[in-house]
Amino acid sequence: MSVVAAKGFRAAGVAAGIKASGNPDLALVVNDGPRFDAAGVFTRNKVKAAPVLWTEQVVAATRRLRAVVLNSGGANACTGHEGFQTAHSTAEKAAALLDAGAIEVAVCSTGLIGAQLPRGRVLAGVERAHAALSAAPGAGPAAAAAIMTTDTVVKQAAHSDGAGWSVGGMAKGAGMIAPSMATMLAVVTTDAAIDGEVLDEALRAAVRVSFDRLDVDGSTSTNDTVLVLASGASGVEADPLAFTAALTAVCRDLAQQMQADAEGVTKRITVRVSGAASEDDAVTVARTVARDSLVKTALFGSDPNWGRVAAAVGYSDADVNPEMLDISINGALLCHRGVASGDRSAADLSGKEVLVHVELGLGDGHAEILTTDLSHAYVEENSAYSS
Amino acid sequence: MSVVAAKGFRAAGVAAGIKASGNPDLALVVNDGPRFDAAGVFTRNKVKAAPVLWTEQVVAATRRLRAVVLNSGGANACTGHEGFQTAHSTAEKAAALLDAGAIEVAVCSTGLIGAQLPRGRVLAGVERAHAALSAAPGAGPAAAAAIMTTDTVVKQAAHSDGAGWSVGGMAKGAGMIAPSMATMLAVVTTDAAIDGEVLDEALRAAVRVSFDRLDVDGSTSTNDTVLVLASGASGVEADPLAFTAALTAVCRDLAQQMQADAEGVTKRITVRVSGAASEDDAVTVARTVARDSLVKTALFGSDPNWGRVAAAVGYSDADVNPEMLDISINGALLCHRGVASGDRSAADLSGKEVLVHVELGLGDGHAEILTTDLSHAYVEENSAYSS
Repeated sequence: MSVVAAKGFRAAGVAAGIKASGNPDLALVVNDGPRFDAAGVFTRNKVKAAPVLWTEQVVAATRRLRAVVLNSGGANACTGHEGFQTAHSTAEKAAALLDAGAIEVAVCSTGLIGAQLPRGRVLAGVERAHAALSAAPGAGPAAAAAIMTTDTVVKQAAHSDGAGWSVGGMAKGAGMIAPSMATMLAVVTTDAAIDGEVLDEALRAAVRVSFDRLDVDGSTSTNDTVLVLASGASGVEADPLAFTAALTAVCRDLAQQMQADAEGVTKRITVRVSGAASEDDAVTVARTVARDSLVKTALFGSDPNWGRVAAAVGYSDADVNPEMLDISINGALLCHRGVASGDRSAADLSGKEVLVHVELGLGDGHAEILTTDLSHAYVEENSAYSS
Repeated sequence: MSVVAAKGFRAAGVAAGIKASGNPDLALVVNDGPRFDAAGVFTRNKVKAAPVLWTEQVVAATRRLRAVVLNSGGANACTGHEGFQTAHSTAEKAAALLDAGAIEVAVCSTGLIGAQLPRGRVLAGVERAHAALSAAPGAGPAAAAAIMTTDTVVKQAAHSDGAGWSVGGMAKGAGMIAPSMATMLAVVTTDAAIDGEVLDEALRAAVRVSFDRLDVDGSTSTNDTVLVLASGASGVEADPLAFTAALTAVCRDLAQQMQADAEGVTKRITVRVSGAASEDDAVTVARTVARDSLVKTALFGSDPNWGRVAAAVGYSDADVNPEMLDISINGALLCHRGVASGDRSAADLSGKEVLVHVELGLGDGHAEILTTDLSHAYVEENSAYSS
């Protein structure tokens, strides 16, 4: 159920003193091989944190990783040359301890944008994390805990279906997610034997329908990073399709855990769009509805205000024919062919799960976006916490 | 200072019983000529309210208007044929009373999306408003009060600079504004003699830098309408440039009043972008920052969290070079060339006005977007009020 679920991996999480609170803030995940294939996807934000610039280079150059160092307590974004030097030194430190090259070590950071990390503490933390490395079950949660910021629970997942290999992972992220800002990090490990190129394709396919379909607040991070490391330690060559399915399941599981622990969440909202002219259009409409502050506040207030959904559908960039538009909330059809239908009190919003279903009546495109409501707690957390 | 500031106009506002509260909910603005030139701009939402469909047709067909009927208490959106019939009947009723054609009467509605208007009450209200029509100074505020929904104050403006003609107007809008949703209505009147075509160009130019630069919550309305009516009653032919400047001043004044009265506002935020590759890019960056929930909650908390601004700039669709990015908040330079600069405590956010200035260092494009913070009151108002 963690980043050490698959064979060939060790992990550790320590308190390096980066966070003022003294909570765990540095994690190390090591691949002991025999293989070191890796792939990554990174934020599309044009303002990229130093560790993203470093890790993107490293993964693109070699498609191999021996280890990943992750820290919370600081995003190391907008930190210039000094910040890049900190990321580089972190990789060098881990590499020296592992008898590897710095180019085989990824670095991820999360926390406040615009402050330098305390480099000495980070490097000392890497040393202590290396000393604490373990493949025991407790090592996964320790690593997952060390990457939390406003997260309230650790996020881990694993998948094993008897094919001889397994997939496990951890993630963090609670706000600024679209897929996210200074927040969303995930490391997934597998003991399947799988080529870097296949791994890269599998990761892109998995992320496209998991993390990329989670949208808490429309804000895309400077630091988002998802990495997958394959040790080959099972000795079993994975079928690419089966592996992609397993990786997707783990990524979806982690994305759902992020949704459930999102900042200020009181409702877990799924926006499902069907009948779109294309899958892209379905994603566009679902994302527009999921981001609309008025939809999100209405659902926080348990108000099935489908008119706000209709308006959001209408201002999305997708093909929409208002006369074909159906809207259901938690199974109650409230708008049929663009006109009010039924009784809005038929939509029961007393529970924590909300399904907003938009049928566009135009084609076969469909998609779901996971989001959350906009609550007092979201405002409180984000006005009081410098993240 | 109102919609009857210019010669040739009468107005009235009455309680027609559309709102359950019994508050004023129907306004009538009449142009007594001698000229009836008119222009309008309308929501770009694909889900358009019945009165928008009606009024857009009317203005496009004739570029003339004798009167505008406006109601609050219901948006008449997603109401199908019956809703369109209500808008049409409303125009017919006013036309009959004014001895005009229905095609010379615009209709605007604002309020809850998805409910039919009580047609009988609306028509009876038009009759009573007609009986109450007046050019006296009190008529303007009465009309402006009748179009309020979550607005807490009436919004009026006027401009007169000795050229022999004047411009006056009213607006409503407090939330769902980008330029807005089921909320933003404005009627501007002038006694200048001016052709419909020139009026149309002047209105588009004015709206582009006023209402279109106000973005409370990124939600574009089903009902947004801005109309300008020219009576020619001053007998003075207006210079197009001078008229555009006056119209722009009135529209900006009204837009600033909407910002100041926005739902839950505790901070009036101006996002100024300079040094963009183009004006379009400047608008894109300013709008992305203005819409970012994390920027808006930070400013609600008086936290000069420029890292969130940097992240929003980075995920905008504009040309951005992180190494050229400067960010100042209320005059304090906090990020220089993409790196933290100075002390964030230098930014004094204790007041109600916040200026976020983003310098992109790429070109001459510049623009400002007006927005507001994201407060507990915004969440409260929009979770408790079915609008």
